[in-house]
Amino acid sequence: MLGAIEAGGTKFVCAVGDEDFKIIERVSFATTYPEETLQRVFDFFDTYPQVKAIGIGSFGPIEVNKQSQKYGYITSTPKTNWRNFNFLGEMKKQYSIPIGWTTDVNAACLGEYKVGSAADDHSCIYLTVGTGIGGGAIVKGEIIEGFGHTEMGHIIIRSHPDDDFDGFCPYHKNCLEGLAAGPSIEKRYGIKAENLDANHKIWEILAYYLAQALVNYTLILRPEKIILGGGVMNQVRMMDLVKKEFSFLLADYVETPDLDAYIVTPSLRDNAGITGGLILARQAL
Amino acid sequence: MLGAIEAGGTKFVCAVGDEDFKIIERVSFATTYPEETLQRVFDFFDTYPQVKAIGIGSFGPIEVNKQSQKYGYITSTPKTNWRNFNFLGEMKKQYSIPIGWTTDVNAACLGEYKVGSAADDHSCIYLTVGTGIGGGAIVKGEIIEGFGHTEMGHIIIRSHPDDDFDGFCPYHKNCLEGLAAGPSIEKRYGIKAENLDANHKIWEILAYYLAQALVNYTLILRPEKIILGGGVMNQVRMMDLVKKEFSFLLADYVETPDLDAYIVTPSLRDNAGITGGLILARQAL
Ligand SMILES: Nc1ncnc2c1ncn2[C@@H]1O[C@H](COP(=O)(O)OP(=O)(O)O)[C@@H](O)[C@H]1O
Ligand SMILES: Nc1ncnc2c1ncn2[C@@H]1O[C@H](COP(=O)(O)OP(=O)(O)O)[C@@H](O)[C@H]1O
Ligand SMILES: [Zn+2]
Ligand SMILES: [Zn+2]
Repeated sequence: MLGAIEAGGTKFVCAVGDEDFKIIERVSFATTYPEETLQRVFDFFDTYPQVKAIGIGSFGPIEVNKQSQKYGYITSTPKTNWRNFNFLGEMKKQYSIPIGWTTDVNAACLGEYKVGSAADDHSCIYLTVGTGIGGGAIVKGEIIEGFGHTEMGHIIIRSHPDDDFDGFCPYHKNCLEGLAAGPSIEKRYGIKAENLDANHKIWEILAYYLAQALVNYTLILRPEKIILGGGVMNQVRMMDLVKKEFSFLLADYVETPDLDAYIVTPSLRDNAGITGGLILARQAL
Repeated sequence: MLGAIEAGGTKFVCAVGDEDFKIIERVSFATTYPEETLQRVFDFFDTYPQVKAIGIGSFGPIEVNKQSQKYGYITSTPKTNWRNFNFLGEMKKQYSIPIGWTTDVNAACLGEYKVGSAADDHSCIYLTVGTGIGGGAIVKGEIIEGFGHTEMGHIIIRSHPDDDFDGFCPYHKNCLEGLAAGPSIEKRYGIKAENLDANHKIWEILAYYLAQALVNYTLILRPEKIILGGGVMNQVRMMDLVKKEFSFLLADYVETPDLDAYIVTPSLRDNAGITGGLILARQAL
């Protein structure tokens, strides 16, 4: 039996699954203080002593560099209670089994890569467009990381000529996340994204931003698949608008798979991250 | 003994080297017609029957997907004589030894990764800023590629407010290459880049473009090193200007190695590509 934690900034999911990465049981609870939240994690896994390894996909930024003293820590998160928290260390104190460690989006990417939308591919990108924008990439089975984990949501893009919003990223203002994450809608119009009319012109503008990001990811990584998740992708026209803009911006410069097979939704849906956690657990063995 | 070919659009370099990737002999000649040029390649390697494998780093676009019927071809290059040329196939007809195949910039990246500026790193990017802009990336020893090879020079960036040049990329106009490759200077000012004053404001503008690219590469790949080569980097102030802009644009959002150790020149200089070819030959064995 394998264990997994999807540690999000607003909620935690814990699950146990079998060797085929099928979820056997899953629980979910709010993210509060580290001690309290970890206690609930322990309460769950203590009932499964047969778990052989656990995989954690965590919100961040986190330290993924094994050479670092801070490996396994959540580092400079805006959630002050969790800043500098030795998440992996606390888990290892409690359980003397192998524990895998990566970002929430890398875990989701791994889930989709192994048993989801990219199960037949050798490379993929997973991008979530929600409260923030984050992404993970896998090439030839390896999670792309180096000096640290990726931060694909903060890349530099061009502003749309019809968009006079300055962007809300505290670091960069008008990076991709600053211009196109869900909260940008409320900051522009004072109304939640899900309540804005489906024909509002902002959806084309957001698609233009997302498509620029996908063009840059495509040119820099040449993945076989791009998987788009997160709340904003629930907007009915968004997927089609993104594909249309992508095609226009790439201008056929490089070949991609047919767009309907290239830019897709996560087939594991809300279970991408936790499934990735199970896979990470397996890999830690 | 190992063999290598650096196949450029204007000149070819052929070399033989030892198992430590030291060059024993190297020749160079103009790129003319495929048959004529290949004959000169054969003339060189025919004198070295002891060569056990050859590595080719070629100008492109080329087909690198082993599943493709066109694997080993130069594909849609603007050099019409070379379009649809089965480079690897012609080489294999002549020599029945293992032959490695990748892009010129991937080969240069491999050279720098194994025995050059990134020899102590686990990941790096090599970017050449010359007549065009091209790049290669290696993460955990693997060349980053998927549906095809990367085209990092054509990413979307923001235009500088003081730059009214439209860009000269035939596909995208104002992509990175369209705005910042060497010929953009001549198209702006009617004077070759190397003849323009070192204090001209355009160097700051070019640095702004290159820095944007490096920020995006950094966020998408988190490499341990970025190596900048190509004619434009000979401009005396360019390296410092790029680092300054990079630091400003990244806004300390993610950690990188110290900038003087992170953004560097190729220590193999003009031999990065051909050395990478020797390494590719070794890997093909
Ligand atoms: N139908 C919708 N259209 C556009 N935006 C939506 C829609 N549904 C939710 N959102 C936005 O998605 C964001 C939440 O994304 P989600 O992925 O669910 O959460 P998180 O990123 O916090 O994990 C919010 O900004 C919300 O306004
Ligand atoms: N000192 C310099 N400053 C700026 N640009 C330069 C300088 N020297 C050469 N260049 C430019 O570099 C380009 C050639 O780059 P190079 O890397 O040598 O060739 P290629 O890309 O064809 O392999 C030309 O556009 C040239 O004008
Ligand atoms: Zn940002
Ligand atoms: Zn271009």
